[in-house]
Amino acid sequence: MPVAPLPPLDRLDAARAVLAAKKRLGLHWDKIAETVGRSLEWSTSALLGQQPLSREQAEAVGSLLDLDDDVVDALTLPPVRGESAVDMTDPLVYRLKEMVQVYGATISELAREEFGDGIVSAIDFELDFRRVEDPKGDRAVITLNGKFLPYRVW
Amino acid sequence: MPVAPLPPLDRLDAARAVLAAKKRLGLHWDKIAETVGRSLEWSTSALLGQQPLSREQAEAVGSLLDLDDDVVDALTLPPVRGESAVDMTDPLVYRLKEMVQVYGATISELAREEFGDGIVSAIDFELDFRRVEDPKGDRAVITLNGKFLPYRVW
Amino acid sequence: MPVAPLPPLDRLDAARAVLAAKKRLGLHWDKIAETVGRSLEWSTSALLGQQPLSREQAEAVGSLLDLDDDVVDALTLPPVRGESAVDMTDPLVYRLKEMVQVYGATISELAREEFGDGIVSAIDFELDFRRVEDPKGDRAVITLNGKFLPYRVW
Amino acid sequence: MPVAPLPPLDRLDAARAVLAAKKRLGLHWDKIAETVGRSLEWSTSALLGQQPLSREQAEAVGSLLDLDDDVVDALTLPPVRGESAVDMTDPLVYRLKEMVQVYGATISELAREEFGDGIVSAIDFELDFRRVEDPKGDRAVITLNGKFLPYRVW
Amino acid sequence: MPVAPLPPLDRLDAARAVLAAKKRLGLHWDKIAETVGRSLEWSTSALLGQQPLSREQAEAVGSLLDLDDDVVDALTLPPVRGESAVDMTDPLVYRLKEMVQVYGATISELAREEFGDGIVSAIDFELDFRRVEDPKGDRAVITLNGKFLPYRVW
Amino acid sequence: MPVAPLPPLDRLDAARAVLAAKKRLGLHWDKIAETVGRSLEWSTSALLGQQPLSREQAEAVGSLLDLDDDVVDALTLPPVRGESAVDMTDPLVYRLKEMVQVYGATISELAREEFGDGIVSAIDFELDFRRVEDPKGDRAVITLNGKFLPYRVW
Amino acid sequence: MPVAPLPPLDRLDAARAVLAAKKRLGLHWDKIAETVGRSLEWSTSALLGQQPLSREQAEAVGSLLDLDDDVVDALTLPPVRGESAVDMTDPLVYRLKEMVQVYGATISELAREEFGDGIVSAIDFELDFRRVEDPKGDRAVITLNGKFLPYRVW
Amino acid sequence: MPVAPLPPLDRLDAARAVLAAKKRLGLHWDKIAETVGRSLEWSTSALLGQQPLSREQAEAVGSLLDLDDDVVDALTLPPVRGESAVDMTDPLVYRLKEMVQVYGATISELAREEFGDGIVSAIDFELDFRRVEDPKGDRAVITLNGKFLPYRVW
Amino acid sequence: MPVAPLPPLDRLDAARAVLAAKKRLGLHWDKIAETVGRSLEWSTSALLGQQPLSREQAEAVGSLLDLDDDVVDALTLPPVRGESAVDMTDPLVYRLKEMVQVYGATISELAREEFGDGIVSAIDFELDFRRVEDPKGDRAVITLNGKFLPYRVW
Amino acid sequence: MPVAPLPPLDRLDAARAVLAAKKRLGLHWDKIAETVGRSLEWSTSALLGQQPLSREQAEAVGSLLDLDDDVVDALTLPPVRGESAVDMTDPLVYRLKEMVQVYGATISELAREEFGDGIVSAIDFELDFRRVEDPKGDRAVITLNGKFLPYRVW
Repeated sequence: MPVAPLPPLDRLDAARAVLAAKKRLGLHWDKIAETVGRSLEWSTSALLGQQPLSREQAEAVGSLLDLDDDVVDALTLPPVRGESAVDMTDPLVYRLKEMVQVYGATISELAREEFGDGIVSAIDFELDFRRVEDPKGDRAVITLNGKFLPYRVW
Repeated sequence: MPVAPLPPLDRLDAARAVLAAKKRLGLHWDKIAETVGRSLEWSTSALLGQQPLSREQAEAVGSLLDLDDDVVDALTLPPVRGESAVDMTDPLVYRLKEMVQVYGATISELAREEFGDGIVSAIDFELDFRRVEDPKGDRAVITLNGKFLPYRVW
Repeated sequence: MPVAPLPPLDRLDAARAVLAAKKRLGLHWDKIAETVGRSLEWSTSALLGQQPLSREQAEAVGSLLDLDDDVVDALTLPPVRGESAVDMTDPLVYRLKEMVQVYGATISELAREEFGDGIVSAIDFELDFRRVEDPKGDRAVITLNGKFLPYRVW
Repeated sequence: MPVAPLPPLDRLDAARAVLAAKKRLGLHWDKIAETVGRSLEWSTSALLGQQPLSREQAEAVGSLLDLDDDVVDALTLPPVRGESAVDMTDPLVYRLKEMVQVYGATISELAREEFGDGIVSAIDFELDFRRVEDPKGDRAVITLNGKFLPYRVW
Repeated sequence: MPVAPLPPLDRLDAARAVLAAKKRLGLHWDKIAETVGRSLEWSTSALLGQQPLSREQAEAVGSLLDLDDDVVDALTLPPVRGESAVDMTDPLVYRLKEMVQVYGATISELAREEFGDGIVSAIDFELDFRRVEDPKGDRAVITLNGKFLPYRVW
Repeated sequence: MPVAPLPPLDRLDAARAVLAAKKRLGLHWDKIAETVGRSLEWSTSALLGQQPLSREQAEAVGSLLDLDDDVVDALTLPPVRGESAVDMTDPLVYRLKEMVQVYGATISELAREEFGDGIVSAIDFELDFRRVEDPKGDRAVITLNGKFLPYRVW
Repeated sequence: MPVAPLPPLDRLDAARAVLAAKKRLGLHWDKIAETVGRSLEWSTSALLGQQPLSREQAEAVGSLLDLDDDVVDALTLPPVRGESAVDMTDPLVYRLKEMVQVYGATISELAREEFGDGIVSAIDFELDFRRVEDPKGDRAVITLNGKFLPYRVW
Repeated sequence: MPVAPLPPLDRLDAARAVLAAKKRLGLHWDKIAETVGRSLEWSTSALLGQQPLSREQAEAVGSLLDLDDDVVDALTLPPVRGESAVDMTDPLVYRLKEMVQVYGATISELAREEFGDGIVSAIDFELDFRRVEDPKGDRAVITLNGKFLPYRVW
Repeated sequence: MPVAPLPPLDRLDAARAVLAAKKRLGLHWDKIAETVGRSLEWSTSALLGQQPLSREQAEAVGSLLDLDDDVVDALTLPPVRGESAVDMTDPLVYRLKEMVQVYGATISELAREEFGDGIVSAIDFELDFRRVEDPKGDRAVITLNGKFLPYRVW
Repeated sequence: MPVAPLPPLDRLDAARAVLAAKKRLGLHWDKIAETVGRSLEWSTSALLGQQPLSREQAEAVGSLLDLDDDVVDALTLPPVRGESAVDMTDPLVYRLKEMVQVYGATISELAREEFGDGIVSAIDFELDFRRVEDPKGDRAVITLNGKFLPYRVW
């Protein structure tokens, strides 16, 4: 019976290596984003595995974080955006899903009134995450910015 | 075998009646929100069934939309915020869920770096929906604004 | 083709009638519990359909809330305690489930250390719900009190 | 085909190592909690993987339990609180879930009457587990203590 | 648009009518079983919808319980034995399922040792339910008696 | 990237080792049960991983079956009784589940008539498995013997 | 609020009416098949709703079984062949599914050896059901006869 | 942290080794069946893991296919017949399942008319698979031959 | 207990009425499409409930098909495009899903090579369905024509 | 406890090796397809694991891509076309599934009108993928070309 080698690193393995190096070096995501040359949110998403990185971007992050070559290689693999990208039952993520559950009908209705028949793109899309100070407790303000796409009629 | 009456209207029945009346009268959600005395988003969410309405609010909307008394009564029932509140497989809503799927790990990571161990509240929460003009196609900008809640340590 | 009568009221129909009457009359659960002759929690659970009521208890509540006879009859049906008893995706209930998800392993481990091999009964069980004032925001304190049942060894 | 190293230890691996060492040394959770500097329940939850530990706390437990360095490192990883945190079909845990199934509607109803529209926090939350002696069989008393959070209206 | 009659009664409707009549008349299952001419367990199962009843048996029960003709007709329909036959999340039924979950591997192993490769029939099967008095609390003794069926080899 | 050791044996690994040794030595479960000092059914269940074994019991079985020390250690781990304990789609186990599906409503109804409101314990529970000779084909008689537990009323 | 008529009969309603009439008249499926002008198996499948019937066929069966006009109309609707066509948890049907579960890999392997890469059609398909006498107990012999379809290569 | 050995081969590993050897040696299933001493279908099913093999049968196949000793050992393990036995979403297997979905109600109805209340055994069962030549395309004829088992009445 | 009216017709009710009228009048979809003023595919999809219809379009179809006013009203409701739009287990639809299952990875890979990182729009999308004659059996050629949308980078 | 070798490479492992080599060498799929001697779409599907490859084809690709012998061996294994063939939650693939969800009823209806009762084959099937230039954004045109198969009537 032939014996196979272990599989090569994938994007989620690379993400774990990035997180470990980031912690060891005490770096912040904005420093990594600066190295990637993109926004904080896109860069974080890319290093967690959900956006494609060019070889140049991967190598720049590899230098910054002192990553092994096989981790750098893995960073250039295609992104993973399916259910394995996140644990939907994690309490923080679940609350985002619950916001969609509770307010999804409202967003549908307001979009239909404002734009007509269509959807808000998750592809031509930008995410913004920021902290807003508030005396009653600081707030996270997450902005979902997507192009409205009308259904084609033919 | 005894025969039972049909069940009374529930919040989702009331929502259907509101939508039908709104269409018949050609009203917009901002006019309804003005009558409710709350924001556009909260008011829409309330009339779709996901927020509680006081009797005064229900009756004001009832007058505006010329609703039957049993619909007004149903509007004062407790809100429904479970899975029946929305069809998660509707294309517009699905894209919101996909945004959570693809970017949930990023939001978790940025929240952990910025705030520490906790979640973004879906309860002490405000939704904002607006249209932003863009020459390449107008955009829907959805803002999720929730208080950060740190895990209690004891 | 023969035509069948509509089905008689069930326990969940009766619960809806109780809630409507309670609202109409402006009563509180402790008044109803007093009429039932049991604790606040057990009585609420019974009228929502999860505990059995004797004919005497059903009739006493029927008098208090001015319920139809068919509702009183339905209150004496066997309790419903399966998944139809509650919407697990309702935000309040979901958080209770999440407490079990996050702390279930801890409770298992502490129970094993303290009592040995067994379970905490959900049958020989008492629920207590109370409000505790707190200057940072009042708290709900929910006490789950179950007999420890050791696994039988034979 | 490149060969990858095995993945580093995660929080659940660390939990298994803690349980093995605790057993080998014959220690109790209250001794470990004392070393962590937190309550019995929080400390147990943390070592099982559901709360974050500082490096100081991880190292103190590492000394007490004579853990390998890689286990100590793994103890400082972010907590895991999703479905992998517990087996919901384990008989002890299932009964906790069944308590939510059977009494969830009651807790919702009592919370609505007492506090209004909102939820009981699973984040600003304390767990208490204790044994209460009873001549008919000792009881486990599990207290879920969460801040009530009213829905924001805007 | 043509209007259809309501559907005729099915076996589960008939079961509800039987239970209501049994309660109204204060009868016990052994009296009904005597009328059916079969064991207590089989007769109960048949009237709940899981066994076929001849017209003679249905009419005899109809006389005993003063059932409407359409209920008697429905009692002669084919039995329903799929998932609609029972709520698997009902606490009593769930514990039976848990017994299968916890002890299923043991029963498989003992059956394999004792009989060889095969199964225990759920068709050539008898159920016995009885109460056994016990000073520490009476017990329910449920006997599952099935023919062993060896796998055919060809 | 640090490299982790393979995980230690768990209860299901130990069960596989026990089955292999039992087969190699040609032993029967009653011989193993005698060594454990418990009934045939409990002992089989324990060695398959669903009951706790003391170190003395684990070592006695280890001697009888000539097991490695790490298997003996694994036998002293806490039992596993969740869904991983058994394959519910295995034909033999499925028929047990089908018995619950088909006869669960009957057992509920007979228990309610005989005992009142409660459940049959799966914890204070004994299993008996035996072969009964029958000229038409021998039968497996499986006895589920559980204490009846009435719902607590408070 | 406008009031809608009840929905017209569908194919499953028509099937129930056919079964009731067949029972009332004491007819057998082969007599009905003769009227339809097709095989026993196809005709039964058609009247249960899984094959299309021409108006002539529907009217011929309507005459034979003395069906109402709306039932005859419903018999000409398109067939229903999705999951609503059958209860897969019914014990008889489940065993058919289990045959696929247990022997599906064998059938795949033999088909691959005999025919190459492809599937056995469920569309260009004939079913045969017959009773074969056997002194040890009569047998049901079900023949699945499907055209082998090779995967197209292009 | 102790390090465990890799688990021994199971029936599905053995099946993979058999398939690889069969391909390498260019053998057909009928040659293997001859060595096993059973029919083509049973033998294939056994070597794929769904039937038990005696040591003699396993060794005979081991000689024929030049299998390692650990593969021969694995062939004598108990069969696996649960969901892991097959991929139900494989296109060939799915069509078999669809045949059950579409024709299951028909088979139930014809069996009830022909035999009365019972099931067709999947245990006292024989599978036959053969190719039938047809000018319009050869056909696979799969025969499911099971003993009819009437429900026991007691 | 107040009695509610039956709910108004929804889009799927309207679709059933359209299909019934189309059959009664012996019309084809291209005639209906001509009345709608759109392509065959879009018009069919709209009348089945998955596209929005203007009042003018609904009334034109109402005239053509002699529909009741309440059906015409229902045709102007928002489209339904969630899982209720289709039975995914219907054999014809299932094969479309299987095409996605089997060829989805291929389409992803070819799209990535040809276009880069993005998706094929299901919104800016046209469906074409046509019959292509073929001496070996006519073919259905279904063309999915969607705009490629690149992921936004920011 | 015997130690087993790691399992041999499967088709999905081989696909990963092909993708890595293709990237390393900077080749395009049309070059690989030319080597395979089939269309672009079929060849891509084959190398991703969903079509069978002859030894000659596997070796030709092995030479082109400089693959290890065990990868070439794995390419000759039977294809994998079940759910493991693709991640249905990947955004690109999900949109294909959504097209089936939204337009499946339309395709069914048009196929029934055009061809009668049957299905569009996913086996006698060709996929075509091409880019079509468009000034408003290039489009992906995916053609599903399947033989129509009428249901057999017997």
